[in-house]
Amino acid sequence: MNILVLNCGSSSVKFQLVNMDHEAVLAKGIVEEIGQPQARLKCKAAGKKDLVDDAPISDHEAALTKVINILMHPEKGVIRDKSEIAGIGHRVVHGGADFAASTLITDEVLQSIKECIPLSPLHNPANLKGIEVAGKVLSGIPQVAVFDTAHGATLPPEAYTYAIPQEWREKYKIRRYGFHGTSHSYVAKKAAEILGRPFEELRIVTCHLGNGASISAVKNGACVETSMGLTPLEGLVMGTRSGDIDPAIIPFIGKHENLNLDEIDKNLNKKSGMLALTGDTDMRIIEERAENGSEKDVLALDIYVHRIKKYIGAYTFIMGGLDVIVFTVGIGEKSWYVRERVLRDMQDLGIVFDAEANRKNETHLSRGPIKALIVPTNEELAIARDTQMILEA
Amino acid sequence: MNILVLNCGSSSVKFQLVNMDHEAVLAKGIVEEIGQPQARLKCKAAGKKDLVDDAPISDHEAALTKVINILMHPEKGVIRDKSEIAGIGHRVVHGGADFAASTLITDEVLQSIKECIPLSPLHNPANLKGIEVAGKVLSGIPQVAVFDTAHGATLPPEAYTYAIPQEWREKYKIRRYGFHGTSHSYVAKKAAEILGRPFEELRIVTCHLGNGASISAVKNGACVETSMGLTPLEGLVMGTRSGDIDPAIIPFIGKHENLNLDEIDKNLNKKSGMLALTGDTDMRIIEERAENGSEKDVLALDIYVHRIKKYIGAYTFIMGGLDVIVFTVGIGEKSWYVRERVLRDMQDLGIVFDAEANRKNETHLSRGPIKALIVPTNEELAIARDTQMILEA
Repeated sequence: MNILVLNCGSSSVKFQLVNMDHEAVLAKGIVEEIGQPQARLKCKAAGKKDLVDDAPISDHEAALTKVINILMHPEKGVIRDKSEIAGIGHRVVHGGADFAASTLITDEVLQSIKECIPLSPLHNPANLKGIEVAGKVLSGIPQVAVFDTAHGATLPPEAYTYAIPQEWREKYKIRRYGFHGTSHSYVAKKAAEILGRPFEELRIVTCHLGNGASISAVKNGACVETSMGLTPLEGLVMGTRSGDIDPAIIPFIGKHENLNLDEIDKNLNKKSGMLALTGDTDMRIIEERAENGSEKDVLALDIYVHRIKKYIGAYTFIMGGLDVIVFTVGIGEKSWYVRERVLRDMQDLGIVFDAEANRKNETHLSRGPIKALIVPTNEELAIARDTQMILEA
Repeated sequence: MNILVLNCGSSSVKFQLVNMDHEAVLAKGIVEEIGQPQARLKCKAAGKKDLVDDAPISDHEAALTKVINILMHPEKGVIRDKSEIAGIGHRVVHGGADFAASTLITDEVLQSIKECIPLSPLHNPANLKGIEVAGKVLSGIPQVAVFDTAHGATLPPEAYTYAIPQEWREKYKIRRYGFHGTSHSYVAKKAAEILGRPFEELRIVTCHLGNGASISAVKNGACVETSMGLTPLEGLVMGTRSGDIDPAIIPFIGKHENLNLDEIDKNLNKKSGMLALTGDTDMRIIEERAENGSEKDVLALDIYVHRIKKYIGAYTFIMGGLDVIVFTVGIGEKSWYVRERVLRDMQDLGIVFDAEANRKNETHLSRGPIKALIVPTNEELAIARDTQMILEA
């Protein structure tokens, strides 16, 4: 069974075709800058030469049509006919509080995703567009929505409720949703597998450290806390996002700098985080400069690590203990420096850090009662698995 | 040596006269609703009948004059002459980043306190008023400023720096300051005393749980983290304050409800917290209703406790371990329920909770390697001690 995984943005379509019989990627790629003169498609197909096509692509429908034609191309392709695609799995950013799991897309599901647009004004419209277009181009093939918020749907009320006016909470469904759910969920389960212990018996903290970053706590198989909130702004210091601040900074700066809400929002989402602290978002550059003695970059890394430690500790205490810390995605998988700073000097808490294994990016980073692991994430595979599971149900 | 401790608000003066030879309170009281028809003075003097005077009090100068006259009253008073007051200790809310300790008030110090008015527009002007008035009414008696922010002045940069635009940080000195410092500092030292261990060797978390509430981490004798930030809004869920939220909730709600920054600020400071969750701010009422099955109140307590646990865990991890948790002020000293919910089921982390001792409000609440203590705070005594120390230096 082949599953086509789609992640549609406002001007892009990421795709991956996975053969589920042996979980092998048959082809993957991206269409970028849709509607722009510089639009182009890149595709890597198993056993074929990498392909780049920069002919104009006017819209999402044209983009997906082109992807399918390449997948079926007699020489460059990997399938012969659309019918070899058994199902389509879509990454959908916001499912609100309604979806605790992936789901077959029906008219009701589409309606629910539409209703979440105010909560995710940038992503949900693009995700909906992708579903609509796939329904045309691949008419008759079942589609599944895999929600980035589904992992957070198991949060208990004490974790998801903000202590703000009731009217705000009820009228707009303001609560903690959490994001990166597909990734957190995938690596949490994988960690249990690696340790050879039942997922349902573990207390796991997963650190998804990319340009966007979040941490989640998984206890007895369910997510019980997660650092992103109503939006992906809350929590860790990120590439361009502030993460947690004193909320009163917003009225303070608004008044003193005469900024409106949109300007403040943009500053906190696009001009804060590591960018505001160092002028850069690339952790490799920041680490290199820090190593060469740049105080600004040293401080930025101190802040970055400090915030991660706070979250790991917070989640350990709400779970009553901790069995394993998981690092994943760009920085989590590749920055030995960040991991070392998070894990060292923690013997009193049960982490016996293995500095050498860490520098080699090995899987196991702690020899103490609390394990620490690097687990590469694979969101596309997680989406494909969910899609297969739903089709076979 | 007698020290007069003053805590001046915009329409109130709290006072306490302390004999430092045996740290005994000679008299204490409050002048409330200054300038209002219902203005009144209440005073409890050692060995005398409680006194209430509801004659009009036009301003702070009249209020302090009245206090001094009562303290010197031939029958109701406790001293004969102003000269028996050796010094005056003022609670000053915001000292900015300049004051890591209490200080003798000079013109330069007054200037610094004035410069912090934008950071504490409600409190610093009243504190300055109190200093000015005491300079007149008790002319010639040295005055000392004890800053609520001094405890936080030892915060390392990774704890006090927000990942927001550099311009904002530099131009307005936006950083974490922390509040309740006099209380955190007092109970942290007291905890070391109770345990008979050197303050400088301990890792302490202090939970100041009143209508305003904050948590601080004290490692090796210095505050290394604290939950309130630029303002007292950040951190724990409080009586009427939200504490931590996704900062993006502010632009979200501002846009959808068409609220301006002042209105949002007021909602988060005055209409959120336990009030927004339950309709009340009195923890005794909330606990009683929760016990009688009110779901709203049960949830509010769950949220309240959850947030405290997150902070204790966060601070434990940034200190690399924990020796003692201290509970103080109203809820911290009196709510066995809140303490039980925070401390129970934490054996894996080294807290062996003594439920019986806790219900009796005893001092020692844990028999595990991590101690937990109730330590009543005494900010006035702390202010008096600092004042004495500076006068004798």
